[in-house]
Amino acid sequence: MSRRRQIYEGKAKILYEGPEPGTIIQYFKDDATAFNAAKKGTINGKGVINNRISEHVFTRLSHIGIPTHFIRRLNMREQLVRQCEIIPLEVVVRNVAAGSIAKKLGLEEGEALPHTLIEYYLKSDELNDPMVAEEHIACFNWASHEEMHDIAAMAIRINDFMSGMFAAIDIRLVDFKLEFGRIYDGDFSRVILADEISPDNCRLWDFNTGEKLDKDRFRRDMGGEEEAYQEVARRLGLLQGDDN
Amino acid sequence: MSRRRQIYEGKAKILYEGPEPGTIIQYFKDDATAFNAAKKGTINGKGVINNRISEHVFTRLSHIGIPTHFIRRLNMREQLVRQCEIIPLEVVVRNVAAGSIAKKLGLEEGEALPHTLIEYYLKSDELNDPMVAEEHIACFNWASHEEMHDIAAMAIRINDFMSGMFAAIDIRLVDFKLEFGRIYDGDFSRVILADEISPDNCRLWDFNTGEKLDKDRFRRDMGGEEEAYQEVARRLGLLQGDDN
Ligand SMILES: Nc1ncnc2c1ncn2[C@@H]1O[C@H](COP(=O)(O)OP(=O)(O)O)[C@@H](O)[C@H]1O
Ligand SMILES: Nc1ncnc2c1ncn2[C@@H]1O[C@H](COP(=O)(O)OP(=O)(O)O)[C@@H](O)[C@H]1O
Ligand SMILES: [Mg+2]
Ligand SMILES: [Mg+2]
Repeated sequence: MSRRRQIYEGKAKILYEGPEPGTIIQYFKDDATAFNAAKKGTINGKGVINNRISEHVFTRLSHIGIPTHFIRRLNMREQLVRQCEIIPLEVVVRNVAAGSIAKKLGLEEGEALPHTLIEYYLKSDELNDPMVAEEHIACFNWASHEEMHDIAAMAIRINDFMSGMFAAIDIRLVDFKLEFGRIYDGDFSRVILADEISPDNCRLWDFNTGEKLDKDRFRRDMGGEEEAYQEVARRLGLLQGDDN
Repeated sequence: MSRRRQIYEGKAKILYEGPEPGTIIQYFKDDATAFNAAKKGTINGKGVINNRISEHVFTRLSHIGIPTHFIRRLNMREQLVRQCEIIPLEVVVRNVAAGSIAKKLGLEEGEALPHTLIEYYLKSDELNDPMVAEEHIACFNWASHEEMHDIAAMAIRINDFMSGMFAAIDIRLVDFKLEFGRIYDGDFSRVILADEISPDNCRLWDFNTGEKLDKDRFRRDMGGEEEAYQEVARRLGLLQGDDN
């Protein structure tokens, strides 16, 4: 454990060098941040739950043919993943108006959007993750046209699959954030889904009560975040101690 | 004059009903605003100059086949235009980083962009003209896919033409804002260039000295805005008192 080289410490995870070249270990912390780390705190047990939820979702996504970085979960807080070159975009998929878009466009929070909406934000803490359009992405070459095509196509499939998965357990998938990365194979590269999918980067509302089961509880000082994350894991069938 | 019905009073212009159905009169005021009207002032003679510059540019653009709302200038401060249904987007074309994009993406003001960049902002004073992407435009149906295609194609041609026109008089076209509108012909509609093109909505820098010849002088309290607007008109050959 102690001999592993740390590659990066982020807001919610630490990356370590993996056992083989081209692999890394994602360690899930309990640290929680919001508003570009202006607000900081801890959600007890979050790392354990997010590790488990992200494993579950990435595994299910790979079954429908979405290429992902996930290799296997190693222990309570760690998973082995393929190292990739992260594309510096946060890809946000929205089904329902909430958070920044409600404010920005004057929409009612909870209003269904006329269509599913994909947004791109530049992943830059210094610049406060500004929203960008495909024109900026092309202009600054943050991703190629082909990569953007693949990303949008994957984002839509992921949204459909996850909407179904959560609907089955009475959860409304309001919106979520994805990160993608490049892996190289000789002169070629392809795009895979990276990072994590968890209540840290999804908005998940109980279908019947509207109760928030995600990081908005922390962002908005609502309390009950530990229980909310556990409830998502429980409904996904991940709290029985069995291995999936 | 006094019997005409006023249709709208905006920040820089007043619209009156035109002499025939489907026409309106744009009256150019000397009022200047910035930062969504948080800053207000007057630039003496601006209305006269912008009316003349906009006439000049729209006329030249129609010669290269850009459809515009411009019919004819009526007098010092007024021009007759075709009434259209304004598409609620501010279309910004940028060649060089300046203003909001420099701040937002951490670029040096004056840095040439890798490529010409088109941006879209929702025209909404209440929402402070938020930047939007084609995904939002499609989602909320602010413009159709075909209209966006036509708008982007026209914006690029307008940029090329205006870059040349200003280069010829030693002015660098840094960026500018356009508005487009729909005119209906039975069941069909097409997109035409509307509003105005003037130092109010272009960034124009002297090629040799870098001197700003546009509304940034007002936004940034630099003084000399009247002289700057006049200088642009003078270089365009519009101050000789002749009619083009
Ligand atoms: N497969 C991967 N290869 C390389 N980097 C990754 C991979 N998956 C995720 N990352 C990056 O690892 C970091 C995860 O840590 P996190 O705490 O989420 O960081 P941040 O504060 O930057 O969001 C992120 O910067 C993410 O982009
Ligand atoms: N051909 C046209 N038909 C209808 N409206 C137009 C036309 N050209 C411009 N407009 C609109 O007229 C108004 C011009 O006045 P302005 O002072 O620029 O207003 P604003 O404060 O809204 O920018 C703008 O709202 C613009 O969208
Ligand atoms: Mg992260
Ligand atoms: Mg205007």
